[in-house]
Amino acid sequence: MTGDREQFQDAPIGVFDSGVGGLTVAREIMRQIPNEKIVYFGDTARVPYGSKSRDTVTRYSRQIVRFLQAQKVKAIVVACNTASAYALDELEREIDIPILGVVKPGAKVAAESTGNGKIGVIGTEGTINSRIYATYIKQIDEGIEVIGKACPLLVPLVEEGLLKDPVTDEIAMRYLSELKDLDIDTLILGCTHYPLIRSTIGRIMGERVTLVNPAYETARELKELLKAEGLLNQKEMGLGENKYRFFVSDSAEKFKQFATSILKYGILSAKIVNIEDY
Amino acid sequence: MTGDREQFQDAPIGVFDSGVGGLTVAREIMRQIPNEKIVYFGDTARVPYGSKSRDTVTRYSRQIVRFLQAQKVKAIVVACNTASAYALDELEREIDIPILGVVKPGAKVAAESTGNGKIGVIGTEGTINSRIYATYIKQIDEGIEVIGKACPLLVPLVEEGLLKDPVTDEIAMRYLSELKDLDIDTLILGCTHYPLIRSTIGRIMGERVTLVNPAYETARELKELLKAEGLLNQKEMGLGENKYRFFVSDSAEKFKQFATSILKYGILSAKIVNIEDY
Repeated sequence: MTGDREQFQDAPIGVFDSGVGGLTVAREIMRQIPNEKIVYFGDTARVPYGSKSRDTVTRYSRQIVRFLQAQKVKAIVVACNTASAYALDELEREIDIPILGVVKPGAKVAAESTGNGKIGVIGTEGTINSRIYATYIKQIDEGIEVIGKACPLLVPLVEEGLLKDPVTDEIAMRYLSELKDLDIDTLILGCTHYPLIRSTIGRIMGERVTLVNPAYETARELKELLKAEGLLNQKEMGLGENKYRFFVSDSAEKFKQFATSILKYGILSAKIVNIEDY
Repeated sequence: MTGDREQFQDAPIGVFDSGVGGLTVAREIMRQIPNEKIVYFGDTARVPYGSKSRDTVTRYSRQIVRFLQAQKVKAIVVACNTASAYALDELEREIDIPILGVVKPGAKVAAESTGNGKIGVIGTEGTINSRIYATYIKQIDEGIEVIGKACPLLVPLVEEGLLKDPVTDEIAMRYLSELKDLDIDTLILGCTHYPLIRSTIGRIMGERVTLVNPAYETARELKELLKAEGLLNQKEMGLGENKYRFFVSDSAEKFKQFATSILKYGILSAKIVNIEDY
């Protein structure tokens, strides 16, 4: 049994996203639990999820979970807010390893952080329309008001690399002015791309508003979960071991470029998987 | 035999695109050959194609062609520039009904239009990187210079409805300034979304530059092709007949909204197809 457990502790964590954005979540896991191996899957052939329906996003997520299980992961992190919003509950029922999304940890910290009981959430259309952040927050405190705002253009702007650009400022300003007027004191960055323009968002919202990055909170919660279940990896990785493995459903070139801008080190390889076969 | 031919003439034309953009092509077909029935497929579950690889776009296109053949279409129009660029040659070899893309008709008219032998092309990354417009244009006249420019942000801006907006003007200006400096006299709108911001593009490029809309040219070529093959529909449609049918691979709601802004009349229904099954 002990041998089995050690082998299981040594297994990687599966992290998936609709594309590259989830790398901001993977990055936090690498920082906070550096002993853990990661298998990352980015669904670059079908990205984005944010504008697609619940059924489609759930079907895609299910295929990816099957792929990750074939990689013998010990736990799964749904690094995509839209997939967490739409598919997490169903996935949880279907598999027997721990699975956590980015929404619940983000919601929890936001509920703890707010002083005036007014929380803003920005995200894709899918995430905002699902009202999933509000659902979780109101389970913690029914009295908190949650105001969502879909920001569909921020993802393409970030992916075009316009991180510090007057156009991104202008578009962010349009999206955020409504939330500013409503006097929120906490803002959840409800899409994995947004931490990359955190300084722009922070400048617009002002110092009084606390920005919550669910990626950070998710990595923290993952660590606690692994600890509680006795699943933390006890061994340090040897040099040359394949600690982080990356898979995509479409051409790896663009993925590698973007990954290099997010992660400290470049990604040497990302394998292409025909995800529709899973 | 005559009966068979009449039945075949009466069959619909299949039109497909990665999403809603191809409706600008369908609209031209409706205008120029109003007797024809259309089966439109928009791959809204996997949109966009413009940033994806040749292999993926070809695989997706092949599935859609199989779906359209199951609808017994008499001809197929690949209304998506990226799919035309990447997949048309292979699809042509695989099926025995006429199939045409939007690239060749656009290239032909641009080659006829240019006076100074300098043609610009704007499109998605896929279309521009394929250099497909240059390939066709140089088959007509080796001496013509073709300058491509990928404009990845224009599609999301158009889909957000920012058709007349300073942000769209600013982004379009950045993309187009290079082409302006190179003194082109003809510009191909190499993505189905661009005709919707034709006036913005025209204002930036100036009166001296001819804008070529491949959608218009494709409908014209389709009409000639059907005539030459004896496939033009001779019958006028009865009232209440289902002339235009729409299928999508994801939620029909957004598709219907966008369609209503492009087509004169609203779309009453769009059926959802699980395209991965084809």
